[in-house]
Amino acid sequence: MDRKTMDAAANNIRVLAAAMVEKAKSGHPGGSMGGADFVNVLYSQFLVTDPDDPTWIARDRFFLDPGHQSPMLYGVLALTGNYTMEELQQFRQWGSVTPGHPEVNPQRGVENTSGPLGQGHTMAVGAAIAERFLATRFGDWMQHKTYAFISDGGIQEEISQGAGRIAGYLGLSNLIMFYDSNKVQLSTDVDAVDNEDYAAKYRAWHWHVIECDGTDPEALAGALRKAHAERHKPTLIIGHTVMGRGCVTADGSNFEGQCSTHGQPLSKSGADVDKTIENLGGDPKNPWVIREEVKALYEARRSELRAIVARRREEEKAWAAANPEKARQLADFIDGRLPQIDYRSIVHKANVATRTASADVLTELGKKVKNMIVSSADLANSDKTEAFLKQTGAFAPGDFSGAFLHAGVAELTMASIMNGIALHGGMIAACGTFFVFSDYMKPAVRLAALMELPVKYVWTHDAFRVGEDGPTHEPVEHEAQMRLLEELHNLNGRRSLLVLRPADSAEATIAWEMAMENKHTPTALILTRQDVPDLKPVGADRYEEALQMKKGGYVVRKAANPDVTLVGNGSEVSLLCDVAVLLEAEGVRAQVVSVPSIGLFLDQPADYRQSCIPEGVAVFGLTAGLPSTLREVVGVGGQVFGLDRFGASAPYKVLDEKFGFTPEAVLERVKNFIGR
Amino acid sequence: MDRKTMDAAANNIRVLAAAMVEKAKSGHPGGSMGGADFVNVLYSQFLVTDPDDPTWIARDRFFLDPGHQSPMLYGVLALTGNYTMEELQQFRQWGSVTPGHPEVNPQRGVENTSGPLGQGHTMAVGAAIAERFLATRFGDWMQHKTYAFISDGGIQEEISQGAGRIAGYLGLSNLIMFYDSNKVQLSTDVDAVDNEDYAAKYRAWHWHVIECDGTDPEALAGALRKAHAERHKPTLIIGHTVMGRGCVTADGSNFEGQCSTHGQPLSKSGADVDKTIENLGGDPKNPWVIREEVKALYEARRSELRAIVARRREEEKAWAAANPEKARQLADFIDGRLPQIDYRSIVHKANVATRTASADVLTELGKKVKNMIVSSADLANSDKTEAFLKQTGAFAPGDFSGAFLHAGVAELTMASIMNGIALHGGMIAACGTFFVFSDYMKPAVRLAALMELPVKYVWTHDAFRVGEDGPTHEPVEHEAQMRLLEELHNLNGRRSLLVLRPADSAEATIAWEMAMENKHTPTALILTRQDVPDLKPVGADRYEEALQMKKGGYVVRKAANPDVTLVGNGSEVSLLCDVAVLLEAEGVRAQVVSVPSIGLFLDQPADYRQSCIPEGVAVFGLTAGLPSTLREVVGVGGQVFGLDRFGASAPYKVLDEKFGFTPEAVLERVKNFIGR
Repeated sequence: MDRKTMDAAANNIRVLAAAMVEKAKSGHPGGSMGGADFVNVLYSQFLVTDPDDPTWIARDRFFLDPGHQSPMLYGVLALTGNYTMEELQQFRQWGSVTPGHPEVNPQRGVENTSGPLGQGHTMAVGAAIAERFLATRFGDWMQHKTYAFISDGGIQEEISQGAGRIAGYLGLSNLIMFYDSNKVQLSTDVDAVDNEDYAAKYRAWHWHVIECDGTDPEALAGALRKAHAERHKPTLIIGHTVMGRGCVTADGSNFEGQCSTHGQPLSKSGADVDKTIENLGGDPKNPWVIREEVKALYEARRSELRAIVARRREEEKAWAAANPEKARQLADFIDGRLPQIDYRSIVHKANVATRTASADVLTELGKKVKNMIVSSADLANSDKTEAFLKQTGAFAPGDFSGAFLHAGVAELTMASIMNGIALHGGMIAACGTFFVFSDYMKPAVRLAALMELPVKYVWTHDAFRVGEDGPTHEPVEHEAQMRLLEELHNLNGRRSLLVLRPADSAEATIAWEMAMENKHTPTALILTRQDVPDLKPVGADRYEEALQMKKGGYVVRKAANPDVTLVGNGSEVSLLCDVAVLLEAEGVRAQVVSVPSIGLFLDQPADYRQSCIPEGVAVFGLTAGLPSTLREVVGVGGQVFGLDRFGASAPYKVLDEKFGFTPEAVLERVKNFIGR
Repeated sequence: MDRKTMDAAANNIRVLAAAMVEKAKSGHPGGSMGGADFVNVLYSQFLVTDPDDPTWIARDRFFLDPGHQSPMLYGVLALTGNYTMEELQQFRQWGSVTPGHPEVNPQRGVENTSGPLGQGHTMAVGAAIAERFLATRFGDWMQHKTYAFISDGGIQEEISQGAGRIAGYLGLSNLIMFYDSNKVQLSTDVDAVDNEDYAAKYRAWHWHVIECDGTDPEALAGALRKAHAERHKPTLIIGHTVMGRGCVTADGSNFEGQCSTHGQPLSKSGADVDKTIENLGGDPKNPWVIREEVKALYEARRSELRAIVARRREEEKAWAAANPEKARQLADFIDGRLPQIDYRSIVHKANVATRTASADVLTELGKKVKNMIVSSADLANSDKTEAFLKQTGAFAPGDFSGAFLHAGVAELTMASIMNGIALHGGMIAACGTFFVFSDYMKPAVRLAALMELPVKYVWTHDAFRVGEDGPTHEPVEHEAQMRLLEELHNLNGRRSLLVLRPADSAEATIAWEMAMENKHTPTALILTRQDVPDLKPVGADRYEEALQMKKGGYVVRKAANPDVTLVGNGSEVSLLCDVAVLLEAEGVRAQVVSVPSIGLFLDQPADYRQSCIPEGVAVFGLTAGLPSTLREVVGVGGQVFGLDRFGASAPYKVLDEKFGFTPEAVLERVKNFIGR
């Protein structure tokens, strides 16, 4: 490729980026202009996608980390034909396909939602794991590259430690990350913040590190070729780039490398927009143009891609003919068809912790579901995800025959990797840790919720009943916190997270069943550390009854003409049943309702809700979390007793006493409430 | 020190650790036994504290990262005389001073609450910054070392990237971190998870790295001496240690290095407790003993310390005599006395964003408050903390004459460093970023809340009115999320976080005033990106009126015999005032209440609350967050209109239209609600 054409194409992206931000009066032109050379090289020479089938499973993936560099992405995707000039002109406007930060849209070539720095490249690690997983099972024809693009900000984010470590440990040689090192971040030059030796650090994580001039297309292509030749390690290309490349002032003097061009229209930065556009070979009067030579460059690439993809499709066909069984399995994976799982017949011991019941299900899933990856943040033996590990084996360096990822103590990284696995397609992702550490995962859970990814979270050791580990390990506000995402709706109008806190082993089984059936949002399973009594003896009858929880909540103890309805979920339900017995002995009729999913329950028709929580009857809610956890379901006039303080270190039965969670103490509260 | 005595002391700690966990039937013996050699060397030869004044400002600090190794800490602190045998026997019991994970208690030698891995050593970075800050201003006599102890788990945590980078960048030569590298983590050996080259990575962050045999007291002492000689860099001592050091089975064979000894009593691990205690020179029948030679070792150290401290106190006295003004200033810092700030006279332009009003206050604080450190995660020019930066200057490598920390894009690290600064004593810490990124900070905010540290969070760009940046940058659930910590009470019975969302510049000023006055909990300031109208013209009168917000909420627009009370906070208040005017035009009398702090308001006597929100009058709440944000303050029968979906990318005035946050749209809702 001749340098002149390549520069023209990169400049074309720069002109479009500058124009988009200028028109929107908002956005980040400087970085977009700096990174344009790389994306131009990548998209015009390396990235393999099917121009006629953008969601082809074996396409190369491009994950953007600095979402604020969206003008660069939309710009190059305009050259490939994915966006029109009109769409670019709608940048950052209501209802446009060019929002301020990219929102996942594989049809358009946007593989991930980005914005919160660090998560984009970590999702790329997840996608690269998914690729290795599938290629291990289905052969080389489905190998593809995963490219990540990271900026000075993303590389500083804490999550880079997890992503860098895990990718290096696993030897993800299909992962190629470009570090757009322009030495300028949003509020200062990088020198005022960070002087680390990036190359040495990534080498310490066992990455293949290449440095090059990030403004030179030949150097960039050379670096990418070296990365392609790497067989054992992920590659980091440190590209030395220039913030606001091409910017000039009104008198035509150079205005590159300026922090002021980072986060505002060039017209406010000190640069002159018109002169800059001219300097880049554009027309200030109409910058919305793809230049002829650039058009030709990308048309040629489209032809090339069609040829490449045709060959790959032939390989795939030959493989499918030779491996009809595997081909059917792959089609099931891609289409999200699950194998038959007879949840009803999953056996539990009596009165086990719901984390243990979850383990029983995970054993079955490990046997049957062949496209599922489960991970734990160094707690597999506590959160009981090791049940899945035992069926499948762990990933090891260069070996993806297992299906379990030891994420290490890196909860946020783990959650973000799960997002990447889910984004890849063909895969199911689940991960576990202590519920209190959902705090660390929240930024990635939020992105999963926004992207509508069906990741499953196994959060064990719920409530203060963690016991001896004390307040740092005892979630109190966390159920309420995660239920805020249940209150928040995604862009399709669904509750953005399905939160399930089952009361016993039967409910835990069905919670998993619901999680597996839920393909539209992430699902949270909130599980106990301690044993909990079965609401009825384990077995098919209890399972059958518990199936009603698919409506969010249901009656677990019916009372005719109840005097009070007792509402709760998780380990509080059996406690409420005990309280109901005590109340009965005193002549008070109590109905008990288990509400594993408050959101689903609230979405039921009023008559169903009232069949559970009858109108005109006193309602008492009990939660080991903050009282507000149950506020909405208990409703006007009801009372909720919960914990409104940090927990404490002591055996959990002592805490039950101290915090008032014994049958006797709750009995007194209920009686006071209903005036008996 | 002879090896025999040193080994005896380390073994003594091991025996106590094993016994504590055994008696509690819960805990983590293996790591505690592995790290005992280091803490013994540190406490018997290096750590300088005043035996007679444990909270002496110039004492060395020891920050534990792996809180589960609490038996090791309590064990060595029993040797120093800080804990009795009876107290060790109460390990993990209700009300004890020896909870499962250490809870900050400097009187006892516990400098930080630990448990969530990674945060302990990051707090050490904060404390080391505080020390440099104070030593720069008050001279060498107050220099001290900050020691951190980190484990295989902590070193994997994402936050290690931030802590390592910042400590290296700043050249915190007073920071010495011991890495207890026993190659065993909770669920597996480390090599199933991680193969990074730790030494190379920390060198890439410009640390001085030393490796040594972590079981050899002389090697450990040598490493510490080398660390003391370092003048420019933080030091990492990688100590090769042995999980469960000293453990044997029933037949006396070695049982060291076993993962099973990590997280449960030795009796469940495969080791034999009695044989192990015997092997370590203890008496299985009564392990609760400090051996004579160990007692002598620590008594000798106490005498040494008294001599060292006496010399240091002399230096201090001489300094104070020569610098009476500075000595008075330091005493003010230590006692938390603030200079007079005339908040009333802080000038704001009319109708500014509350982040801009915050900047006006920060300018004043930067001039007056000489022991305050402010930080931003690469958003100083957006969150407007640069106002403080401009008054004080930024920290630079080896230069702590400024008072602003450029944390880089590392929100969790920043928040955790603030905790460390606050823990050090003598200092005030504040930090800023976009409100949506409070998600990243939550784990450290929770610890600040639990430790009752008065850190101040400047969270700007609240609500969907961030606008063009779109849903990844628009907090919706975050105010409700942070208010869960307002619902949660700390161990002193206070709401664990003060959350303030001011409505205009006057309220923003007073919010800062309240934050500075609040010495008991962290404070969150939730501020707008966009300009907001002043509720009344800026000036002393408006300030005077707004002072009522110290009760959490107050009437901003009084109506006699109101038909409806409109309740909100932040940018919704001026909108509600506009609605009230429209209502009035239609003959509806509307009172408007601003509730910057829901928690404080709920804690007011009923008559005050009813003077704001009269009983029997319809209540309508408006929030740009989730409806549940205002649920409790609006109360039974009231209606809340909020946003129950992710935001979107568009100019904020368009979003106001689309989401129904215009005066006209709200007017219709209120009229519908009250049936007009």
